[in-house]
Amino acid sequence: MTIGLGLIGLGKIARDQHLPAIGETAGLDLCAIGSRNATLPGIPSFPDIDTLLHAAPDVQAVTLCTPPQGRFDQARAALLAGKHVMLEKPPGATLSEIAALVELAEARGLTLFATWHSREAAGVAPARDLLRRRKLRAVHVTWKEDVRHWHPGQAWIWEPGGLGVFDPGINALSIVTRILPETMFLEHADLSFPANRATPIAADLTFRTESGVPVTVIFDWRQTGPQTWDIALDTEQGPVLLSKGGSILSVDGVERMAEPDSEYRRLYARFRTLINEGASDVDVSPLRHVADAFLLGRRREVAPFED
Amino acid sequence: MTIGLGLIGLGKIARDQHLPAIGETAGLDLCAIGSRNATLPGIPSFPDIDTLLHAAPDVQAVTLCTPPQGRFDQARAALLAGKHVMLEKPPGATLSEIAALVELAEARGLTLFATWHSREAAGVAPARDLLRRRKLRAVHVTWKEDVRHWHPGQAWIWEPGGLGVFDPGINALSIVTRILPETMFLEHADLSFPANRATPIAADLTFRTESGVPVTVIFDWRQTGPQTWDIALDTEQGPVLLSKGGSILSVDGVERMAEPDSEYRRLYARFRTLINEGASDVDVSPLRHVADAFLLGRRREVAPFED
Repeated sequence: MTIGLGLIGLGKIARDQHLPAIGETAGLDLCAIGSRNATLPGIPSFPDIDTLLHAAPDVQAVTLCTPPQGRFDQARAALLAGKHVMLEKPPGATLSEIAALVELAEARGLTLFATWHSREAAGVAPARDLLRRRKLRAVHVTWKEDVRHWHPGQAWIWEPGGLGVFDPGINALSIVTRILPETMFLEHADLSFPANRATPIAADLTFRTESGVPVTVIFDWRQTGPQTWDIALDTEQGPVLLSKGGSILSVDGVERMAEPDSEYRRLYARFRTLINEGASDVDVSPLRHVADAFLLGRRREVAPFED
Repeated sequence: MTIGLGLIGLGKIARDQHLPAIGETAGLDLCAIGSRNATLPGIPSFPDIDTLLHAAPDVQAVTLCTPPQGRFDQARAALLAGKHVMLEKPPGATLSEIAALVELAEARGLTLFATWHSREAAGVAPARDLLRRRKLRAVHVTWKEDVRHWHPGQAWIWEPGGLGVFDPGINALSIVTRILPETMFLEHADLSFPANRATPIAADLTFRTESGVPVTVIFDWRQTGPQTWDIALDTEQGPVLLSKGGSILSVDGVERMAEPDSEYRRLYARFRTLINEGASDVDVSPLRHVADAFLLGRRREVAPFED
């Protein structure tokens, strides 16, 4: 049975990732777009989700690719209209609203899927398996990229709720929380806010796992030149490195896994499966760590940032 | 059966509230104190919780009155030693650590009680009942007090994790989340940080309930003269006011309820009941709202604060 899908928010991530992935996923039929200004040839477009929910009865599920600050009202409207919902990361602007969406989806018997695309990177599942057979000594996360390249002119990311450097950083946290065999807890956080912005441009975090393994994290958006998305895992049996955002896995210095990116295809296949099974999948732990970092973090002001 | 109780952290709140309440609660026997420097005549004292857990076998349950930043390790040690745990508010410095404690207590079959003493104020339960029979139009929370009077020289409150003005403000949030018939969500937050401090001295928050009722919140620690701890509930049937931190309830302008404070006696009676029933009580929603405020809040710098 084919599932009629509505896509809300036709920005960069929707065009770069969602549209190709939907096109390659059997059992999904893109039948409506919700976007204030943008349209897609051949697909009915609606200016907002309320209009779409009202006017496109063939939509059974929606994906929300809009900025996180307004996503709660959209997700709530979709669930109240009886639609399954898939959320881009982060799943919302606050933890309270996600807790409420989980309750609502459960009460209505609908699928809610909070996606963490980086968890679908090729090296993540094998790294997780490997760490269950090794003794971990330390974890070092380095996520350094050039915000001007990856988020050109995206004003929402600098506004409250936009998360700043945690927008990419949460990808690292989503991988770490997936692969570590234990829970981790934030101990210290230093957040660097540009003088003219509401969200941080850099963050240094120190976590510790239940058994005491240190997890140090460096997020920085001021990187030019080579970009770094590395998770280095120091184990008693030798070094394990997840690089390029999880897509390459090196074990004891030897590259073991490097596959072409299929993160979003995996997400859509999983969304289809969740709907067919009547299940939901909402893990808030990456966003909870980010909230903890804001709650516990020491703020420092740094040079203003101009786009 | 009498429960042997250990009290960890012998600071202001322990002396002002916990010790008298424990003394007045049947079925609890204070048999050990954990405190770096302070002691109590006639009660065995230990310099830290690990020593206490090792040397005081008659302790079956502990109350943690230490600052929130170090409480996780103490609570974890107590649970691992097979003790029931009662936590002063806020229950921890991060949400992740509370989630882990909940899992640990459940796995060990122990009671974990995250207390919110303001919920035990005399007017709270009747206000909750009343709001189920009325139509709410708006909520205004005003929590203004003089930090120099209430937190003299408490350096931890200005350190990351100390919450600043949210330390008293979370009392208001604990009441509001208890009495409102619906969930509420943060929409905007303005946080005022003294230039020389890591936590806010004032906060303006705007929430909205599921059905759209506005909830405005003002926290301010710079109040001198009269102090205000008011929750004003505008209902279609007339005004309802919870004042003095929930201890006085006025309905349609008439004072209905004003009882002497018995918040902590109620907490200890409830802790005893939870232990006897093998149950836990952990509602993170007040702290989750605070984390949301830090996550979504716009920060502004204000005049330095000197104690």
